[in-house]
Amino acid sequence: MVQAYILIQTEVGKASTVADIIGKIPGVMQAEDVTGPYDVIVRAQADTVDALGRLVVAKVQQVEGITRTLTCPVVHL
Amino acid sequence: MVQAYILIQTEVGKASTVADIIGKIPGVMQAEDVTGPYDVIVRAQADTVDALGRLVVAKVQQVEGITRTLTCPVVHL
Amino acid sequence: MVQAYILIQTEVGKASTVADIIGKIPGVMQAEDVTGPYDVIVRAQADTVDALGRLVVAKVQQVEGITRTLTCPVVHL
Amino acid sequence: MVQAYILIQTEVGKASTVADIIGKIPGVMQAEDVTGPYDVIVRAQADTVDALGRLVVAKVQQVEGITRTLTCPVVHL
Amino acid sequence: MVQAYILIQTEVGKASTVADIIGKIPGVMQAEDVTGPYDVIVRAQADTVDALGRLVVAKVQQVEGITRTLTCPVVHL
Amino acid sequence: MVQAYILIQTEVGKASTVADIIGKIPGVMQAEDVTGPYDVIVRAQADTVDALGRLVVAKVQQVEGITRTLTCPVVHL
Amino acid sequence: MVQAYILIQTEVGKASTVADIIGKIPGVMQAEDVTGPYDVIVRAQADTVDALGRLVVAKVQQVEGITRTLTCPVVHL
Amino acid sequence: MVQAYILIQTEVGKASTVADIIGKIPGVMQAEDVTGPYDVIVRAQADTVDALGRLVVAKVQQVEGITRTLTCPVVHL
Repeated sequence: MVQAYILIQTEVGKASTVADIIGKIPGVMQAEDVTGPYDVIVRAQADTVDALGRLVVAKVQQVEGITRTLTCPVVHL
Repeated sequence: MVQAYILIQTEVGKASTVADIIGKIPGVMQAEDVTGPYDVIVRAQADTVDALGRLVVAKVQQVEGITRTLTCPVVHL
Repeated sequence: MVQAYILIQTEVGKASTVADIIGKIPGVMQAEDVTGPYDVIVRAQADTVDALGRLVVAKVQQVEGITRTLTCPVVHL
Repeated sequence: MVQAYILIQTEVGKASTVADIIGKIPGVMQAEDVTGPYDVIVRAQADTVDALGRLVVAKVQQVEGITRTLTCPVVHL
Repeated sequence: MVQAYILIQTEVGKASTVADIIGKIPGVMQAEDVTGPYDVIVRAQADTVDALGRLVVAKVQQVEGITRTLTCPVVHL
Repeated sequence: MVQAYILIQTEVGKASTVADIIGKIPGVMQAEDVTGPYDVIVRAQADTVDALGRLVVAKVQQVEGITRTLTCPVVHL
Repeated sequence: MVQAYILIQTEVGKASTVADIIGKIPGVMQAEDVTGPYDVIVRAQADTVDALGRLVVAKVQQVEGITRTLTCPVVHL
Repeated sequence: MVQAYILIQTEVGKASTVADIIGKIPGVMQAEDVTGPYDVIVRAQADTVDALGRLVVAKVQQVEGITRTLTCPVVHL
């Protein structure tokens, strides 16, 4: 199982709606609005890095109002 | 009371208009054009971090011509 | 209560130790190693923005091996 | 007269001291701690751009604990 | 002969298609999807720096869905 | 007299045209295409910082295809 | 098997030595000097994301002269 | 002949000295202090991209007080 934080930038004024919609995507554990260089921070998980990449591209990035996503996989060192 | 600087990037050619409009929003104390990686720097205040977040999303980001805002809350250490 | 994500960059080779130590600081709910532009992502909470700022400066940033922290307060829009 | 915001990054744990010392430099109107990608935001003024540059290099940057300064001159468009 | 890595950001949801199309451009040796601040990393070569610049502008950047490219020429020190 | 470098990002595929047009603006001394995080680097001059800001906003940023400009005034320390 | 690009910043003047040493680490397929915001670009592989993270932290980041590494795992979408 | 801009960040308080020393290096045509995210902007030239890389690594980066250089080769599109 691979877990990751996804740091998201949205179009101005869209952060709240984006967080609400992403929070309902299967595999997403939490989606919250934040201030600073990112607008929404998401925690998600998938079976593999490739499945995580597909979750981001096929589900998360399909949400209207997102301009950039930055996926940070959790690693156990 | 929470105070913050809001560092704003605008569409090219829109900085001056954006600063003028933001300067009239209640809660905004100052809005100035600058050169460098940001185009407008705003100083604002609100009762709580959540109210500040709503001021940015519901008022500041509604101004046409803004592409990114970066909110930096002032902290008293 | 104010919650925040703290995105941390560490000296090379220090990420694992930094995450372990931060995870034991009161107020810190989770500290994990990640890959990408940040090395450790922390979730913390405090009573106010000022208390959160003091937690970061007086506790988190005292951990040896940290080079930059970026605090992103959670907002409820 | 040229005015500017100076966005400052400090060594971890030094933000508060840096802001206190900079606040006493002649030409500096305000110096505050913030959260986010910058640690201290300063407002300063000088007679010319060159004088502003010298204020930053000869006075502000001499304060121990500063790692980067980003000067954003205010412009009146 | 000049070789380079081209780090590419795409519109959300376009990374896979962009990598497929770029991979077929003459002079491009490899084009892969990645996670992190970039979406696609390309390896390409050309006869000169100017020819490399033209390859990027006239061929790579013409692919629909690209928002930014960052060319990093390989140097032999 | 104030001189400055203006670091410009353009829409993909527009760098060459943007450099050509900017090179003909009065006050612009040189405009060249580059590779890396910026697409065009311009050298310009004006009587004051405010006049320089107006040159950037009223002339340079009016050129179609520009997405961001970063003005770096030259200082004599 | 997980593959990744590792974008590396080095201390000034160390890029060439860093690339030479990293190129000999097992799991590293290629290490080259580049110009631009990064100094060395490495291609590596490991069995899992966790093993890749350990390769970066335990082997690559131990090379003297490295200041930042940015790991970009390859994903097959 | 390859020409390039080299955007330089220095240790705080070192910009002026760095610019003076770099300005005397053969192959460097101009070195000026600037405000903003960079501290010194240099214009240099060499016979090839590799020679330019060596000029940066072997000469420019040897100047004490430099923390980062970003080389942007000029391209003729």
